[in-house]
Amino acid sequence: MGTQYDALVARLRDIHNLNMASSLLGWDQQTQMPAGGVEARASQLATLSKLSHEMFTSDETGQLLEDAAKEVGDDYDSDAASMVRVVQEDYDESTKLPTEWVTEFTELTSKADSIWVKARQDADFSQFQGTLERIVEMVRQKTELLGYDDHPYTALLNQYERGITTTQVKQIFDDHKPGLIDLIAGITENADQVDDSILRRPYNVDKQRDFGLKMIEAYGFDFNRGYQAISVHPFCTHFSSNDVRITTRFESNFLNPALFGMMHEAGHGMYEQGIGQNLEGTPLASGTSLGVHESQSRMWENLVGRSKGFWSWALPQLKETFPHLESVDLNTFYKAINKSAPSFIRVEADEVNYNLHIILRFEIEMDLITGDLAVKDAPEAWNTKFEEFFGIIPTDDAKGVLQDVHWSYGIQGYFPTYALGNLLSVQYYNKAVEAHPNIPSDIANGKFDTLLTWLNENIHQHGRKFTSDELTQKITGESIQSRDYLDYLTTKYSDIYGL
Amino acid sequence: MGTQYDALVARLRDIHNLNMASSLLGWDQQTQMPAGGVEARASQLATLSKLSHEMFTSDETGQLLEDAAKEVGDDYDSDAASMVRVVQEDYDESTKLPTEWVTEFTELTSKADSIWVKARQDADFSQFQGTLERIVEMVRQKTELLGYDDHPYTALLNQYERGITTTQVKQIFDDHKPGLIDLIAGITENADQVDDSILRRPYNVDKQRDFGLKMIEAYGFDFNRGYQAISVHPFCTHFSSNDVRITTRFESNFLNPALFGMMHEAGHGMYEQGIGQNLEGTPLASGTSLGVHESQSRMWENLVGRSKGFWSWALPQLKETFPHLESVDLNTFYKAINKSAPSFIRVEADEVNYNLHIILRFEIEMDLITGDLAVKDAPEAWNTKFEEFFGIIPTDDAKGVLQDVHWSYGIQGYFPTYALGNLLSVQYYNKAVEAHPNIPSDIANGKFDTLLTWLNENIHQHGRKFTSDELTQKITGESIQSRDYLDYLTTKYSDIYGL
Repeated sequence: MGTQYDALVARLRDIHNLNMASSLLGWDQQTQMPAGGVEARASQLATLSKLSHEMFTSDETGQLLEDAAKEVGDDYDSDAASMVRVVQEDYDESTKLPTEWVTEFTELTSKADSIWVKARQDADFSQFQGTLERIVEMVRQKTELLGYDDHPYTALLNQYERGITTTQVKQIFDDHKPGLIDLIAGITENADQVDDSILRRPYNVDKQRDFGLKMIEAYGFDFNRGYQAISVHPFCTHFSSNDVRITTRFESNFLNPALFGMMHEAGHGMYEQGIGQNLEGTPLASGTSLGVHESQSRMWENLVGRSKGFWSWALPQLKETFPHLESVDLNTFYKAINKSAPSFIRVEADEVNYNLHIILRFEIEMDLITGDLAVKDAPEAWNTKFEEFFGIIPTDDAKGVLQDVHWSYGIQGYFPTYALGNLLSVQYYNKAVEAHPNIPSDIANGKFDTLLTWLNENIHQHGRKFTSDELTQKITGESIQSRDYLDYLTTKYSDIYGL
Repeated sequence: MGTQYDALVARLRDIHNLNMASSLLGWDQQTQMPAGGVEARASQLATLSKLSHEMFTSDETGQLLEDAAKEVGDDYDSDAASMVRVVQEDYDESTKLPTEWVTEFTELTSKADSIWVKARQDADFSQFQGTLERIVEMVRQKTELLGYDDHPYTALLNQYERGITTTQVKQIFDDHKPGLIDLIAGITENADQVDDSILRRPYNVDKQRDFGLKMIEAYGFDFNRGYQAISVHPFCTHFSSNDVRITTRFESNFLNPALFGMMHEAGHGMYEQGIGQNLEGTPLASGTSLGVHESQSRMWENLVGRSKGFWSWALPQLKETFPHLESVDLNTFYKAINKSAPSFIRVEADEVNYNLHIILRFEIEMDLITGDLAVKDAPEAWNTKFEEFFGIIPTDDAKGVLQDVHWSYGIQGYFPTYALGNLLSVQYYNKAVEAHPNIPSDIANGKFDTLLTWLNENIHQHGRKFTSDELTQKITGESIQSRDYLDYLTTKYSDIYGL
């Protein structure tokens, strides 16, 4: 490649390294940092973010992009052409945000995190209200700085799912909302078909951890290039495709959160570990969108981890770890882990209810951004909508409006990608099985590399070279749709609940 | 203060934050990072180090220093005058090292760390030899770049103990070497006076950790502004005076390494936690020299933690944690933890033998730098000197030349500061007791704040405002000397061994 392209890549590597350092500061803040460190950490993150933003949005980067574009040729799929194309889009987006705004926002959201942790602990929204008001104000500024066509919220969506519009998302949500509501109604009438009490009893946390680690190692999460820790809200981050971190939240009286949480984060982690080494140290070395990322976590959590085939292999091992399960048969266990019922906490919601949790957040976020809803009224709006959607009201704000870390991060517009990920997980999985019909039977034999290799080849290796829609078109021949997901849910839950 | 001074401080804060981020990347590498992360981490550290070095050594910083100097007045002790004075010295030192050299050295030593860990594990110096050869070569370049008067090694010493010369250090070492040798001879003749077998038996690691944490919390290490983790080689680092980290290495069959190691690192940690908040986020917010730093760790480890008074308070608690100690009396325990005998590992060496370990390294480092000794011959030179000094030969390189992490870090010139710290620990402690004669009886009652407050006021709060010698003159009215240390050792060990 030409000398300007090489100079561009060298510059992007320094910027990438600053961003990876920021990610590590964030990881440490969630997993080890003492409370006293919060002020200094905010200042450190502000410096790194400022320097990275200054370097990236500088005229020098703009000029290198322009010059490198002339060197990379017109092979759309090549690493070099993709680098210039994708980074040019990043550059156009980033140059819209002034350095001062980015610095202030980073400092604000860094401090907000500890405030949110405390507020959630105390189930007291008022501790967080002032901070959230300032965040919403700055996010609103962001929509104006970034620009949008149909709705200010589109500016936020596009940060996580490039090219998608609020209108589109609303349409996709509307497409499957009635089907979900019908399915939930059917399940509610047959609620007595499933009993999950065996999962809700004391489970030794160390043993939960050991078993979960064994499962995700079997999946293919590479611990030579990965690490697991504990945090309040589970997440996955990476500082290289060869250094991928996941966290887990354990509950001592319920098996599901940690076990399926580990499978979920491992799904994210294996995506990052699968990025081609040719992209290492570049801005393309990451999952392409949050929706595609979530398709991977949900696939390993639900389509694999909550399948009957998987547990025909894993249940005997779980029984060895927890002998009190000895008398539980496969079908009872399979139904228990797939019990569906409205609940307060999104991260614990089952597959059927999950997307409704997202639609609630989507609607509230839109109203906060337009100003139709004041921050101080968010808890009430949350609870009102919750009753309307699920027929129950959160018992306190920790189980309601305070449950998610996202708003303290200032990443409004992120939530919809969870629902898009659910849809994509089934679209992709169906194609994988079409290519390799033995995948389900492999899973039932504890063999996961057929699926993982297909994902590596078709999705992971490409990093950010292709957008979510380009990838989905390549793989499935169509764009994201809700048909496959609703079919999957209907078939699975009709069987479980005898609908 | 003036606008140029404020601009200087703002610029220094960004540089400081880059350096603190580097420290966190280093901490993570030692405590959590998976093996696969090593290449990416080296690249990240190289970027941060390059940017920090570029920003600090830029003409802009030089100009700000020059302009700020006109604004700060001539009150030598003021924060502002100290800032400009000390940072000007840093600047003069740093501008001598070209950015390319610093980047290459950082990348080299970052990779060297993992290679050293593996070589030490396998007790195989040949795995590390090539890397060390390159490090020594670059360190030699460094001495020429930095410049020196009496000996190239002085250039290295001055990085850790500003203003001291190789000639001086050699003199101070020569001053107390004969006294140490006499004392060791006396102890060796009376070796049967002390039996430490009660310390060398299984000690549950979790209980060791719990007890150690209780002790250092009693000392005054603030866990709201501090955190402890596990690593191969114990160390202390900080990202703010409000975010101080220490690590511990546990042995399941010997009580001393973790217990006294925690006291030692807590001594370092309390120094950092005691830095004045007025200096937070500035380059003065750190201990002033490695020698003074070590005086704090050694004081809490030895003068407090290995005193009979301390254990008159702590032994009953240790007996609760480890009931098999129930029948051990105070005097037996006190003698056991102070057993003195030649041993291979510096970090396990007792107070009497310790400085000889340093003198060995001092001599080998000087010969490596001058080229009188080739790297490939270092293991043999080490073992030859070891026999000469201690009468025993290390059984393998892990117990010899490979035992310390320092050379892989490229911090040749660092070792002598350990011995200087031992000397200063007694000089300072004697002054503290002169000011507050109740300190020994307070310690015997588990009350440590009299000593800690004195240290906070006389040493900690000043950060890097004063050099080691300025501080020692202020506190003791003289420079560093070995008289107090030798007196202390002679009195203490004559009692223990009945000399």
